[in-house]
Amino acid sequence: MRSAADAAPAHVHLPELAGAPERFALPAAEARYVARVVRARPGETLRASDGAGCVAVLALEAVRPAPLVRVVSRSLEASPAPRVILCGSPEGERGDWLVEKLAELGVSRFVPVDTERDVWPGRDRTVRWRRLAVAALRQSRSAWLMTVAAPAVLEDALADLAALAPGERWLADPAGAPPGPRTARPGGGLAGAVGGAAGFSDGERAALAAHGFAPVALARARLRAETAAVAMAALWAADAARGPEA
Amino acid sequence: MRSAADAAPAHVHLPELAGAPERFALPAAEARYVARVVRARPGETLRASDGAGCVAVLALEAVRPAPLVRVVSRSLEASPAPRVILCGSPEGERGDWLVEKLAELGVSRFVPVDTERDVWPGRDRTVRWRRLAVAALRQSRSAWLMTVAAPAVLEDALADLAALAPGERWLADPAGAPPGPRTARPGGGLAGAVGGAAGFSDGERAALAAHGFAPVALARARLRAETAAVAMAALWAADAARGPEA
Repeated sequence: MRSAADAAPAHVHLPELAGAPERFALPAAEARYVARVVRARPGETLRASDGAGCVAVLALEAVRPAPLVRVVSRSLEASPAPRVILCGSPEGERGDWLVEKLAELGVSRFVPVDTERDVWPGRDRTVRWRRLAVAALRQSRSAWLMTVAAPAVLEDALADLAALAPGERWLADPAGAPPGPRTARPGGGLAGAVGGAAGFSDGERAALAAHGFAPVALARARLRAETAAVAMAALWAADAARGPEA
Repeated sequence: MRSAADAAPAHVHLPELAGAPERFALPAAEARYVARVVRARPGETLRASDGAGCVAVLALEAVRPAPLVRVVSRSLEASPAPRVILCGSPEGERGDWLVEKLAELGVSRFVPVDTERDVWPGRDRTVRWRRLAVAALRQSRSAWLMTVAAPAVLEDALADLAALAPGERWLADPAGAPPGPRTARPGGGLAGAVGGAAGFSDGERAALAAHGFAPVALARARLRAETAAVAMAALWAADAARGPEA
């Protein structure tokens, strides 16, 4: 899905971008990316974001001994409405690509949820998933970085949602109603909950209903957990591409 | 995404279902699935489809020495409008999950396209991908099997589309228009084209335009090839869940 965009400059993630001086050396991970993956040369233009709405155009002044850049311009993008996915553990090793796809599709926060029936295996993945989210930011040239929460039980994940702007809340459920043509109210946030491989328990479904999650059928067929989560994110992304409702 | 559906019977794929006698032994792959994966027991109910619209309820009469079933009922589902994805090769080993997700989301035909810039590595994947499509049919309990074409150059893939009902044709392109709220005209087919990791060439984009493919922006950000293909399939699946337009 690149076409003309292929010629566009490489994109780096610089958390300190907003307060960076006019000239600075790229930190280690982005220096490696620019020198070894992109193989950019002095004189080329880069783009950068801090993952929190600050974006910049950079001029690469030197590559060796360390990539040195000059800030050509810097601006702030308006914050989009939050899009949060709570997801139980899918079967097998599907977490990595789930994280990658949610980040590419513009989800703002991913919360792996340990449910009564499905617990995320291994507690050491959060660091890797945050790296995958950064890779997706570079890939999609986004101003915003998807945050990856530490695994939480559903009750805690739901309590954390209280900090969000109110908005649509979907529970992926093949027995639910189909999604409406527009997914978000203007300015409203979006939250989606997807059970793990074995699904939510009745008690968990009741807790979700009490927090305003309405069952939504994303397809006629039954979807795997990770497929349902990515399908939700794809519907939200298409709706964001449509812009605010007239 | 299972909830109550978890208690539903296991689903098997039987290409010969429409002409099968009242009692028959399951063929090898489905016998293994029923005996070793599902661990079904005599007396249990199974569901089956032939991947071409014939669905049945089966009673499992014996498991050893070979699973023997009796046909309880058999019916034909109406053929859905075709949904075809043409996709260039993504980076890395992303083909397997691409196939799995497209099949789950109800795509009817997947055509791996060798483009000027991206050629699918290895010519031996079609068999594995067809197995993945069967696994997705079982998972989603679908009456319809996604067919997997052998890799083709774009020109040949476009020529094959002529056999389809006319309908919407989308080219994934971040510079395109956002998708409308409904993706398909009533009864019309859907076809989507997604460039590989390096995108379509100008000549290929012209050929796609000549075949009626209109650029569609699936998200505000740039998406990887496989993400764009799955996002298209998710929009089509949601639209199919909404049913025919009023």
